[in-house]
Formats: sequence, structure tokens, C-alpha cells
Amino acid sequence: MHEYYLEKFVRPKVIAVVGASDKELSVGGKVFRNILDNGFGGKVYPVNIKYKVVQGQTVYPTVSDVPEKVDLAIIATPANTIPDILESCALTQVQSVLILTAGFNESGEDGKKLELKLKEIARKHHIRIMGPNCLGLILPHIQLNATFSNAQALPGQLALISQSGAICASILDWAIDKNIGFSAIFSLGNAIDIGFGDILDYLAQDPHTASILLYIESIHDARHFMSALRTAAKLKPVIVIKAGRDQLGAKAAVSHTGGMIGADDVFDAALRHAGVVRVQTFEQLFSAAKMLTKKYTIVGNGLMIVTNGGGAGVMAADHAIESKVSLKDLNQKTLAALDKVLPKYWSRQNPIDILGDATPVRYKQTLDICLTDPSADGLLVMLTPVAMSDPLKVASEVIGIAQQTNKPLVTCWLGEKQVKSARDLFLSHQVPTFNTPEIAVEAFSFLATYHHNQQLLSQAPSPQRHHSTSDIAGAKKIIETALSADRKILTTIESKAVLTAFGIPITQAIIATTAEEAMIAAESVGFPVVMKIYSPDITHKQDVGGVQLNITSAEVVLATYKKILENAKAVQPHAKILGVTIEKMRIEPHDRELLIGVFRDPIFGPVIAFGAGGTLVEIINDKALALPPLNRFIAENLLKHTRVYKMLGEFRHMHQANIEDIIDILLKVSEMVCELPHIREMDINPLMVNEQSAMGVDARIVVDFPNPSLNPYDHMAIHP
Amino acid sequence: MHEYYLEKFVRPKVIAVVGASDKELSVGGKVFRNILDNGFGGKVYPVNIKYKVVQGQTVYPTVSDVPEKVDLAIIATPANTIPDILESCALTQVQSVLILTAGFNESGEDGKKLELKLKEIARKHHIRIMGPNCLGLILPHIQLNATFSNAQALPGQLALISQSGAICASILDWAIDKNIGFSAIFSLGNAIDIGFGDILDYLAQDPHTASILLYIESIHDARHFMSALRTAAKLKPVIVIKAGRDQLGAKAAVSHTGGMIGADDVFDAALRHAGVVRVQTFEQLFSAAKMLTKKYTIVGNGLMIVTNGGGAGVMAADHAIESKVSLKDLNQKTLAALDKVLPKYWSRQNPIDILGDATPVRYKQTLDICLTDPSADGLLVMLTPVAMSDPLKVASEVIGIAQQTNKPLVTCWLGEKQVKSARDLFLSHQVPTFNTPEIAVEAFSFLATYHHNQQLLSQAPSPQRHHSTSDIAGAKKIIETALSADRKILTTIESKAVLTAFGIPITQAIIATTAEEAMIAAESVGFPVVMKIYSPDITHKQDVGGVQLNITSAEVVLATYKKILENAKAVQPHAKILGVTIEKMRIEPHDRELLIGVFRDPIFGPVIAFGAGGTLVEIINDKALALPPLNRFIAENLLKHTRVYKMLGEFRHMHQANIEDIIDILLKVSEMVCELPHIREMDINPLMVNEQSAMGVDARIVVDFPNPSLNPYDHMAIHP
Repeated sequence: MHEYYLEKFVRPKVIAVVGASDKELSVGGKVFRNILDNGFGGKVYPVNIKYKVVQGQTVYPTVSDVPEKVDLAIIATPANTIPDILESCALTQVQSVLILTAGFNESGEDGKKLELKLKEIARKHHIRIMGPNCLGLILPHIQLNATFSNAQALPGQLALISQSGAICASILDWAIDKNIGFSAIFSLGNAIDIGFGDILDYLAQDPHTASILLYIESIHDARHFMSALRTAAKLKPVIVIKAGRDQLGAKAAVSHTGGMIGADDVFDAALRHAGVVRVQTFEQLFSAAKMLTKKYTIVGNGLMIVTNGGGAGVMAADHAIESKVSLKDLNQKTLAALDKVLPKYWSRQNPIDILGDATPVRYKQTLDICLTDPSADGLLVMLTPVAMSDPLKVASEVIGIAQQTNKPLVTCWLGEKQVKSARDLFLSHQVPTFNTPEIAVEAFSFLATYHHNQQLLSQAPSPQRHHSTSDIAGAKKIIETALSADRKILTTIESKAVLTAFGIPITQAIIATTAEEAMIAAESVGFPVVMKIYSPDITHKQDVGGVQLNITSAEVVLATYKKILENAKAVQPHAKILGVTIEKMRIEPHDRELLIGVFRDPIFGPVIAFGAGGTLVEIINDKALALPPLNRFIAENLLKHTRVYKMLGEFRHMHQANIEDIIDILLKVSEMVCELPHIREMDINPLMVNEQSAMGVDARIVVDFPNPSLNPYDHMAIHP
Repeated sequence: MHEYYLEKFVRPKVIAVVGASDKELSVGGKVFRNILDNGFGGKVYPVNIKYKVVQGQTVYPTVSDVPEKVDLAIIATPANTIPDILESCALTQVQSVLILTAGFNESGEDGKKLELKLKEIARKHHIRIMGPNCLGLILPHIQLNATFSNAQALPGQLALISQSGAICASILDWAIDKNIGFSAIFSLGNAIDIGFGDILDYLAQDPHTASILLYIESIHDARHFMSALRTAAKLKPVIVIKAGRDQLGAKAAVSHTGGMIGADDVFDAALRHAGVVRVQTFEQLFSAAKMLTKKYTIVGNGLMIVTNGGGAGVMAADHAIESKVSLKDLNQKTLAALDKVLPKYWSRQNPIDILGDATPVRYKQTLDICLTDPSADGLLVMLTPVAMSDPLKVASEVIGIAQQTNKPLVTCWLGEKQVKSARDLFLSHQVPTFNTPEIAVEAFSFLATYHHNQQLLSQAPSPQRHHSTSDIAGAKKIIETALSADRKILTTIESKAVLTAFGIPITQAIIATTAEEAMIAAESVGFPVVMKIYSPDITHKQDVGGVQLNITSAEVVLATYKKILENAKAVQPHAKILGVTIEKMRIEPHDRELLIGVFRDPIFGPVIAFGAGGTLVEIINDKALALPPLNRFIAENLLKHTRVYKMLGEFRHMHQANIEDIIDILLKVSEMVCELPHIREMDINPLMVNEQSAMGVDARIVVDFPNPSLNPYDHMAIHP
């Protein structure tokens, strides 16, 4: 059987530390000392051409001189020495190498060249590399600390993968103070070979790991990353924090959709698609880490709040709304039970204010009752240090209760000095505790979001493509014809033809190249009509006065034809104008204007957008994104994540819009982008929908020769 | 001279504690003990009908028995005893009373009655009351702790006013641990007499107070509150946190504007109007408190970030964008100076990454250079605990620099265990330090926002009303006629007439009550025209098919007249239909659709809204609010706080819109709402604007008899 390719990284028995020394402040000295000090059970050999003895051990000049077969070589020598060291590793078939040294891609031209050279040597000798420019790895369960960090890690069930070594060190330093343990810690650095995908594959299967934290700066291999992330997130909670979220890559977008979507929006959609919870700040990462140290049964987002101070309850409730946490009403049984044990003027609603003189017993009685209420998916217990309260005794009552339930129970003791010992007690009993109501609510929301995203994930479409009635070949032909004429923006007529080939309902337009043709076209489609300028060079027709609505007679068609051409020429004198298109005008007072769009992200491939439509979509900026392929559940979820969704239900005098038709169009668009990798950008805008039907009114498609970016069907593949 | 009415609360010499006892856990026992233990310099007399001696002192049966003139009576006896005690206070002209006892308005019907009784007695005897149901007050500078809290307060320059006693206790408990001192602490409780306005008036003038924190649950007297807040915020930084921000009062709004504006939006606008910084979470309140313990010179929002880890720098930069903090580019001089002292591969941009091996000296050299860069309005110094860093030594270098500059310098040492002692060192030297990059950036943003809001405040209009050419009497007449006919929603024609009376440009409509009249009207205004249903009962004309655009011939007018009536009757069969209005259609391809609206808040009075217009404004939800009266500066600022503002500049092929005209209309609307207290709600929607001009196309005004809510001119009054 072929050995698992990360085996020697995660279960090494013999390690060589290249660059080991006695220097306290050198990377090599530090990592060697860390390995020795942490009681690693295997063998560790120092390798250094400069010394005979290091930290009391015999030193070998090269890796190939080590008297045993080396599983893992850890390299901490200057960057320019590493190519030779890799060659020396190859001599004795050492094929797992962790490079801590910096000075590569991040350090100018010379570093870049050196990094390419490493890759070349590694490929030649089948060497797998972790790093370079990383902090190393820690495997607490085998007592291996192969980092040059001062931080230590306790054993536990949380795994951490961090692209940055400094961030990794910071998280470890925080965690040890909070009594949070780890199953494995990987610092990836420049990740010239082993990346997030590889480690996620391992952690998904690792029995020591119950949940996973990722700190990401950039993704190289989106394909492997996404499939590994989906697999891992199916098995255990995964929390992601990404730095650089506001730094959008420069891009030239032609469509509305392209103009609205930033790189970070796509990353966000991809993470949701993978069933992962994304956090935005370190505070939130820390909160999530605290929550994930325990295995909870979470079935919903209903939180019940118990407090001895009304103000704290209101602050928590405020934040619940923002965090999409639901404060359910107390049912009659709960009300009656609480009435029996609480003083007369308790709040009688959620948040449950049990008043300033609440004793430990009153807390316990209240919590016992709340836990039996089925609408309490989780509990938040708060205490303000008023004169009559006993922070420590209440804490110990709460700990007793927390240990007997598998519902999430989070605590928040406000203040600092008087509540410190209570907080420490929570910590030592692994009951999640937070300093402010907002952060406590947010922490619960991460679990609720995880649950929600897992539901989404379980709804992912099966890889079998359904039997399609679409004219895929016809659509391809239209696109290829345009590309062979060196055009990347399809005309309105072409765009509508491609959509029609996929069964997407869209108004049909007739081209008229003279005023008389326009008149005949208008008579044949029937009044009222819409007339639009027809030019491959004019993208925003409305802005040049190139759109005229509600034209009701032949006479006006003649005048309008002239006017549209004049308007367009005034604004874009050099545009090539082919004529005017004539469409039947859809006049439905109950129509809502929507947008369905497509944008192809350079990393994650095609993305489907849904939102409010019209000429101002970039300003309205009401959109939700999903990665294809879609199914009904994902499509419906997409609708619900927009503001315009409210308008699709009964709205003023209008009946509920035909949501089924919208979903159907989304599924067809999904099929289209999966089948046509040529599509770079697409807008159906506006898509009109009323209670009867949905109908695209204008469309624009931007195409290009397909490049081997991520294929949407890859999102479904489970990495072996 | 008349004595200042809070004099006896803030500088008492003789205090009586009614309800003083030996019981450790009683409110009376605790407050008496707190006063004695804190070394208050004046006299303190225990008053209790039940005891002869309490805590070693002679007890008096009633306040009137105390052998000295009592300045301040503090009452901690059961609620039902208090009316008699107040009467007894009156006997010896004790007119300043602090009531700690709970059991009033917050405790059912009996409590409410009792509270009314207190008010009555207080009014009769000119007694001023702080409380009831409050924690008390602390004045560290005269060693007076008149609370029943376990928390203590150090002397300092920060004042705290908290509506909730429990929150007050929590903040104090946190502050003492962080070495943060106070000039004064007031817990207001039910605030039946003395409220935020009174205390703010005092603190604005108090020489011990450099900055003020407010915890607000609800505002009773918006008029006094706003004027006091404005005065205080002109003199010192004021930070506000408000609980219950998502709990909007139920309200029935007719207009788009009314539908969009929540009570919390108005509160937010009011605070900005007052030059105050609002925070949303306790974490942020604590951050703000840390920042405000020092007096900085702040002149802008430009932050320079120095870090020894790239990832931390990126996380900080991400949050800077969100917090409206600007990361300015390094100028040539700074770049050159840094090149001289930093290693080759430093980031050469802001955030300034001085690399993982940064020494204390390297930090110092970098900071010295950055402080001379004029674009650095503030500095954020970060450290990640990598192996080579010395958290404590770097901290002491940074403290040295912080003590020599009056620019804000905030620090963030990531991690916990290895950086704890450095954080403590920062604390003890009053250098603000935060645990994560996001919170550190946010803390600086509060200072930057304070500076920005102060600029807004300094632009407040002068109380002199400008000479108006508006036909105020005419507009009033129209409104009163409608009200006397028992109509609160003005017709389109009436609404437009009121706006025209104030010189606000709006399309004029002609009423037609037959198809033939419609035809004549259309011929006289000129084609194309817009036809709209004319009915006092139909508010959303578009939704009933009651709006037809771009009608280009007499023939179509005739058909459309019939169709509009049919449409409307189909949807609202019982609506009283008066006919159809005819307007000239404005066809300007470069028009942007905007909204200007008015809504009268029950607490804060009229509010002016500006945003994107159209039929979907509630969905687009792009709005900014300001309290009238406006001036040019405030009006321009209002525009800039919307997303649609981007579209007013050059947008696709369009020239910059006529912003001057929009501002002019906003000023006229401001005048209108100041002059016409009848106006409850108003929409001008859409307001069309292109490069030439702005023109309202539709308008709706809702009126009512004026009630004595806040007058907009009060916002300018400075409370004496």
C-alpha cells in the first residue's frame, strides 16, 4: 500500500534538525531546544556543518550522514544553503521537509529565484515541503513542538492552520492563558507545496481533532482548498478568519454584476458554500475557539438569556438581532414554572431578568426550568456585580448545570475585579465565558451559523447532471462566432439568444436598421413597444438616451428612431451603430425589478448573483452570491439573503410574486454557466416578476475563450 | 445670588443617611459604610427610627431631628416609607434628596402610584430628587462614595452618567482593574426629576471632568437633553452607548420616509448633531474610556501602523477601512528616513512592517520618524510575540515616546501570556493598549469621529432665521383647510402647492375629472405627459396601476384615462376617485432619482431624510438623516452619507449632477418644517436631478395639528 503522503510530517519517528545550534536566539537553536524540551518520544538528530556537539548531542554534518533513516528534516539554515541541503536529503530518500527559514518569495527578486529553485529540486526528488518562512508545526499529542516560538500548546481537540507565523504565535500565546488545548498546529508560511487543502484533508480524518480554525491570507489552489474544506466541514466545525478582506484586486468589469462583486464577496460565498463559519476579527476568532473546545448539540438559533440586570439583558438582546440569533418567547409552561420560583416583578419575558438580588439558588432554579423549554437552543447566563450578588457562588452553580447539559451554555460576568475569580472558575471547568454581552451573544451565533451552514451543505446538489433540454451546442455556436469575430461583448440579440437556448424567458427583440423597418417591427409585435439603440459599442444604453419606453403609435416610432440615433451620436460619436431594436413593452403594474447575474472570479470560478435590478444596481447594492451548481434549496436561500426578497412577498397592494419562476431561472442560469465556461460576465437586468410570471427584459453577456479555472462541478467533488 | 440647584448634590457638607443600619447586606447599611470608609470630609448622620446606634454613631429618628442643617438626604428605606420621609425633609428645608430604594415605576401599578406621590410632594416642597431605583453617586475628588456598590472608583478625569445601576457597577468594577479614574459618577435610575440634561449641564462646567461617558436606556426630556449634550460636547468629548437600539416603537407611517426611519436612526442623527460619538458595544465603550483618560491633540483620521508582523498589519488595515480611519501613504521624506534605519525588506508602505526580528531600538527609530510625518494624525504600534521579540523592552521604549507626543498613540501587543506584563506596563503609564488590532483601530476611530463631529457641530446654524421669501401663510392655509375637512393626507395637488409656497421646484399637475378634460390638459402642457390616478384614498399610485408614463398623443390620453380608472377600481373598489392628474413628463436621460423626506419623531421632533428615490426606497434603504435646521455644511454632509452620492458625481456618461440645487431644496425643506409644525411626514419622491437642475416629480405630505414636541430651533439653544 502507498503510504499517506503527510505521514512523516504528522507521525515522524526520526527527526533531523538542520541548523541546530546552541544559540538561544537562532531559529535552529530554538527549534532544537523546543523539540528536546517538549519530550518528543522519537529520535532527534542535530545537523550542522559548523559544530561537533550541540546541546549535548553529537552533530552530523549533513542529513545523509545521520545514522538512521530520517522521517522528517527540519531546516533552519540561511536561505541560500537550502538547495544543497535538499539535494543532500534526497541522497538518503528523506522526502518530508519542513523549512522554517525566511528569505524567499517575500524578499525580493533573489528570494523569488531561490524559491523556484527549491520547487524544482523538490519536484525532481519527490520531496514534499512545508514552508518556507513558517513557524513550524506542533503536535501536542506526540509531544512534538517543531517551532521556534516561545509559545507552548496544551493538548486538546482544536486544530489550527495559520498562514502567518506571527499570528500563529499570538493565538498560541492567548490560548495557553485561556486553558485552550490543541490537537495540531500548522504554520504554512509561503506554502510552496503543502497548503490548506492538504492539511484540511488530514485534519478531517484526524481522530484527535474535533474542530478547526484557519487563518488565511490568500488561497493558491482553490480547487483543492474548496473540496478539502467541504469534506472537513461536513465532519467537524471549521472557523475561518481571512486577512486582507477589503483589498480587492483590480478588475475591469463590463456588467453590473461584475461591477458589484468584490473578491471578498466571492470568498465569503465560497465559505458559506463549504458549510464553514467565517469570523471577521480576532476577538471573534477567540470567541469561536472558546466555543469549539466543547462538543455541543446545536439544533437552532434560539437563545434564552438569564440576567440579574435589565440593562445587560437589553444590550444582549440588541446584539442578538444583529447576530441573527433569535430570542424566542417563553412558552406557558416555562412562564408558569418561573412564576413559582421568581419574585413578583421578574421580567416575564426573554431576556429573563431575575432581578438584582438574585441568589445562586434563584439562578439555578431559573436555569433548570429554561433548559426544559424546547425553544431554548442555547442559554446565556449573565451577572452584573451589584452589591447583593455573589459572583463566585453563582458561577459554581452554573458550572454544575453546564456539565449536565449538551445545549450550549455561555456565560458573561460583567465587570472585572469582582468577577475575575468567577471567570477563572469558568475557564478551568471549560464553560465558555465572555467579558461583554455582545461578545457572548456573538459566540453563540457562531454555533447557530455553523448549524445553518451545515444544513446548506447537506443540500448540495449531487454530481449527476440532470437531463437537459437546453440547446447547448447552439449557444456555444453563437459565442464562438462572436469570439472568432474578435468580439467579447455579445450584442443584445446574441445575449438573448443564448439565454433562450437554455429556456430562460426573455423578451425577444427585432433589429431595425431603418425607421421604416422599426415601424413594421412595432406593428408586428404590437404596441406599446420599447425602442433601444443597437450598437456593440454602447454598453449602458440608457445613459446615452438610447432607450425609449411605452411607444404607442407608428408615427412616434418613426420620430423616436431618429431621436435615438441622434442621442447616441451626441454622446458617443464614434460608436458603431447598427440600428435600433424593437421589443414589446411589458406593462405589469405589479412587476418587481430584479437582477440575475454571473461573474467569473479568477480564483473561485463562476459566481451567480441575485438581487434588486434596475439602472442603479451598483448603488442599491442589494445582492447575494452563490457558487454554481445551484439546486432549489440553495437558490431559495439566495433569494432570502437579499433585501428585495421582502418585496417578493405580499407588498402593498401586490400579491406574492412568482418565486418558483425565479428559482427556475436561477437553476437554468446555473446550468448555463456550468455548460458554457466561455461566459465571463452576464446580466439579466431587469428581470421582471409579478404574481404570474418572470421575464427578463434586457440582457448582456461577456464571453472569452475558456481558461482552466475552477470548474463549478469541482465544488461537489469530495477529495479522496 | 440664587444657589446652583445641584450644589448640594455635588458639594454636600452635611449628609443624612435615612435607613442606615449595621446590616452588611442592606442598602442602607452598605451606603452608610461606603461613605464612612471612603473618608468623606463632611459630616454624615445616620437616620433610622429603629435604632439608637449604628456603626458606632448616634442615630436620629428623622431627618428633621438631625442637629445640623442637612445638605443632602440619602434615602434607603422601603418604598412605601418614602413619602413621609420627604415630608420630614421638608420640615427643615432639606431640598436635595438621593433615593436609592427600588419598587416604583418598574414594579407594577402600586409602584407607579407611589412614584407619582413622590413627584407631587417634591413639587410642593421644591425638593430635587435623584433616583429612585439607582445606585447613587460617587465624587472621588471629595472622597464621597454614596452608593451601595461593592465597586470603588479612583479619582480621575472621566465622568460617567448611567441610567442603570447594574451597568454602572459593572463599568466601575472594570475601570478600577484598568487603573481608570473618575471625576464623578451618577446613577440616574428612574430619573423622576434629575435627568441627563441636568447632570450634563453640571459636568460641562466641572473643572475635574475632561470627558464624559453616558449609558442611556431612554430619554424623557429630549429638549433639555439635546441642549445640554450640545453644550457639553462643545467643551469635552462625550461618548454615548444606548441600550434598546433595535427595539423600534410601533408606528403607522404613511410616507416612504416614515417607513424607512426607525427610532434608533433618529437618535443616531440627534447624537451626531450634538457632536457626540456613539458606540454600540461595551467593548467599544471600554475602548473609548481608555482613550479618553488622556488629552490628545487630534486633527484628522490618518493612522500610521507600525508592526513586527505582516498579518497583524493587514488585519488592522482591514478594520481601518470599516472604521473610516485613513491609512495615508508614507511621504518621500519618511520613506527615505525609514530606509536608513530598517532592514532591506521592510514593507515600504503603511502598515509599516518592521519585520519579525524587530528590536526595541528599531521600534523607537521607526516611531520617531513616523511622528514627524504630518499625515500621521495617530499611531498604532503592534507587536506579535515571535521568538525574537522582547515585548516588555519594546513597551518601555514606546511608553517613552508616547509621553513626549500629544498625538494619539495606541498599542496592541498580540497574544496573552508573553505580553501580559507589557500590557500592565502600558496601563500603569496610561498608554492605551488593546488586545486585538481591530479594537485598537476602532479606539483611534472614536477620537477621529469626535474630531469630525466637532467640525459638524461648529457648523451649526446661527439662531437668526434668514429673511424668507416663502409664502408661509399660504402654505398654512392649505394645511388648515385639509385639517378642518378632517383630512391628514394632503392630495398631490395640495402637497405640491405647499412645496411651491417654499420655492421648492416641483412639476405642476392639472386635475382632470373627465377623459376630455385630460386631453385638453395634456395638449396644454405639451406631450409627452404622465397621467396619475387622483384619489385621497390611494397612497401608492403605482401599485394600483394608477401611473402611466410617456403618453404621446391625445388619442392615447383618452384610452389611458379609462384604463387608469379601471385599474384603480379593480384594486381598491372603495377608493374615492376624483379623476386623473396630468403632468408634463420630464425626460432627461441623465436624471438620477432621489428622495427628500421628513418624519416627525415623537421624542426628537422633525427629521429630514435624503437618499436614493424611486418606488423601492424601503428596499434600497439608502438614506441619511439630519435634524433641522440645516445649513449648507450640514446639508452637504447629509448627501455624502448616502450611497447614491457616488452617482451624483460623474457617473458612466453623465456629467456631475447639480448638487447646489439639491442643497438648496434641502435648505428650503428645512425652513418648511421649522415653519410648519403641522407637517408629520413628507416625501418628495422622486426628486429628479441632472447636470442642469433638480425637480420634484411627485410629493406627499401628511399633516396634523401641531403638538408641543421638540421645536427644531431648540437644537441650537445653549442651555444657560
